[in-house]
Amino acid sequence: MDQSLQNLLDKEQQQLNTALTSYISELDMPNRLRESVLYSIQAGGKRLRPLLMKLTCQGLGGDPQKVYPAAVALEMIHTYSLIHDDLPSMDDDMYRRGQLTNHKKYDEATAILAGDGLLTNSFHVITTTDLYTDQEKVNIVAKLSKASGLEGMVAGQYLDMEAENQTISISKLERIHHLKTGRLISFAVEIGGLLAGVSSERMEILKNYGDYLGIIFQIQDDILDIEGDQTLIGKRVGSDIDNEKSTYPSILGLEGAKQYKTKYVNEAVRCLKEVGLANTDLALISHYLSERNQ
Amino acid sequence: MDQSLQNLLDKEQQQLNTALTSYISELDMPNRLRESVLYSIQAGGKRLRPLLMKLTCQGLGGDPQKVYPAAVALEMIHTYSLIHDDLPSMDDDMYRRGQLTNHKKYDEATAILAGDGLLTNSFHVITTTDLYTDQEKVNIVAKLSKASGLEGMVAGQYLDMEAENQTISISKLERIHHLKTGRLISFAVEIGGLLAGVSSERMEILKNYGDYLGIIFQIQDDILDIEGDQTLIGKRVGSDIDNEKSTYPSILGLEGAKQYKTKYVNEAVRCLKEVGLANTDLALISHYLSERNQ
Repeated sequence: MDQSLQNLLDKEQQQLNTALTSYISELDMPNRLRESVLYSIQAGGKRLRPLLMKLTCQGLGGDPQKVYPAAVALEMIHTYSLIHDDLPSMDDDMYRRGQLTNHKKYDEATAILAGDGLLTNSFHVITTTDLYTDQEKVNIVAKLSKASGLEGMVAGQYLDMEAENQTISISKLERIHHLKTGRLISFAVEIGGLLAGVSSERMEILKNYGDYLGIIFQIQDDILDIEGDQTLIGKRVGSDIDNEKSTYPSILGLEGAKQYKTKYVNEAVRCLKEVGLANTDLALISHYLSERNQ
Repeated sequence: MDQSLQNLLDKEQQQLNTALTSYISELDMPNRLRESVLYSIQAGGKRLRPLLMKLTCQGLGGDPQKVYPAAVALEMIHTYSLIHDDLPSMDDDMYRRGQLTNHKKYDEATAILAGDGLLTNSFHVITTTDLYTDQEKVNIVAKLSKASGLEGMVAGQYLDMEAENQTISISKLERIHHLKTGRLISFAVEIGGLLAGVSSERMEILKNYGDYLGIIFQIQDDILDIEGDQTLIGKRVGSDIDNEKSTYPSILGLEGAKQYKTKYVNEAVRCLKEVGLANTDLALISHYLSERNQ
């Protein structure tokens, strides 16, 4: 990875971990439940979404510090979704990022409640900050609940499970991942723009950029499940094939998937140019997402 | 039950069911997931919380129709909590209100996602209505997420499970039910007051009234698990004893629990007097909650 991007990600991880840990630590809640929440919050996420939000806001002339409440809320929702997706009745995963999944470390009921609580409190974080106007708060809650709810991420996870053991078309696959992964990545970029006060025209381009990043992220995820290094990814390689999941490589072939990914990287870069962000670290991120090995 | 209260509850059920069904039906989401959400939404809840919100708002001079977005959101959160509480790893219930629980009718993964989605979209309902100012929206989301999150209902459900097979003190029991049931009932009353624009002094009394109602509701729930009619309640009687759960009767004895309940009914009625609501249907509700047989 490019060293300056690595530095950015490291710094962002530190800032986010501090903000998240301090928020959770100050809540008046049962100790073991708090431990379980902190376990998943501190499990070493890349904090990619917060970094996207911050760089977009900054690149468009906004105050980068202003993104924090929305970024913290977004990471809480992302973390809840991972905890619930890993459950036995869902993807039944034992490890995530090289550590036991929440329900394996604690128990299923605690994992479900930790997820429910993270989801619920994410909206509390946004509505109780001093950094946003009421109008901004309402806008952010409306967009976040739509992106992650029954028409967004929840629908994506449902369709993803429904598609197991089925051969699906590339457009169906794209729809699933747009909902499951793309919507929250797009939200990150969109809120970065919103907090910088950009025009609605540029906002549309930002949303497309976010969508493309989501697809790139997912194609690379699928590729890593075939040719990735287990010790770097922190989870078992080959699980998609074992679970007979439709993936970009299973539909397009490995080389076809790589070409498809390149097409979207070019689209993403084009969007950045159109909104005047081509010479920012966001371009590095588009390439990183495409080439990452973990 | 008093006939006029019965009429009120019937009418409220109809209005709420229509509002909830129409909201869910218009969402762009997978069909089977929608069916599962509607299954639990239409499972015959009493819609007590919305009625409390409406009567409080109306009694204090507000427009009763204004409560609907908040009432719909509240019922969505109440419904999600029932779906998740019934899961095998939680209370492992097969029936609720005489029907199969959501995970028995569909499957565990669908039930978890239906719950997650109802919770998430409840905040979307509030932030996208035309009936509230931005300030009201922010206030309602902040209060609802606090009442139902890691410091509220989620903590209550966690502590409730932790207390299984344990003998706990009456104050611990009260804290559990305050969090698990009381917080949302109190929210209903509080938002009724907020939308009627009451003073902060009267708001405090309303919150106490809501807390007392929550306790009355729970004591009667415990009593019904001993001397209730299974066909009326729609779930098995005696499950608390089988699960060795601490309840008001197990700690205070059946008669002691009934006396304790009477004390709280008197407190609730006193609160109503203090805020000038003694001669409204809210007084009927306090007594109904105390004497209900289902």
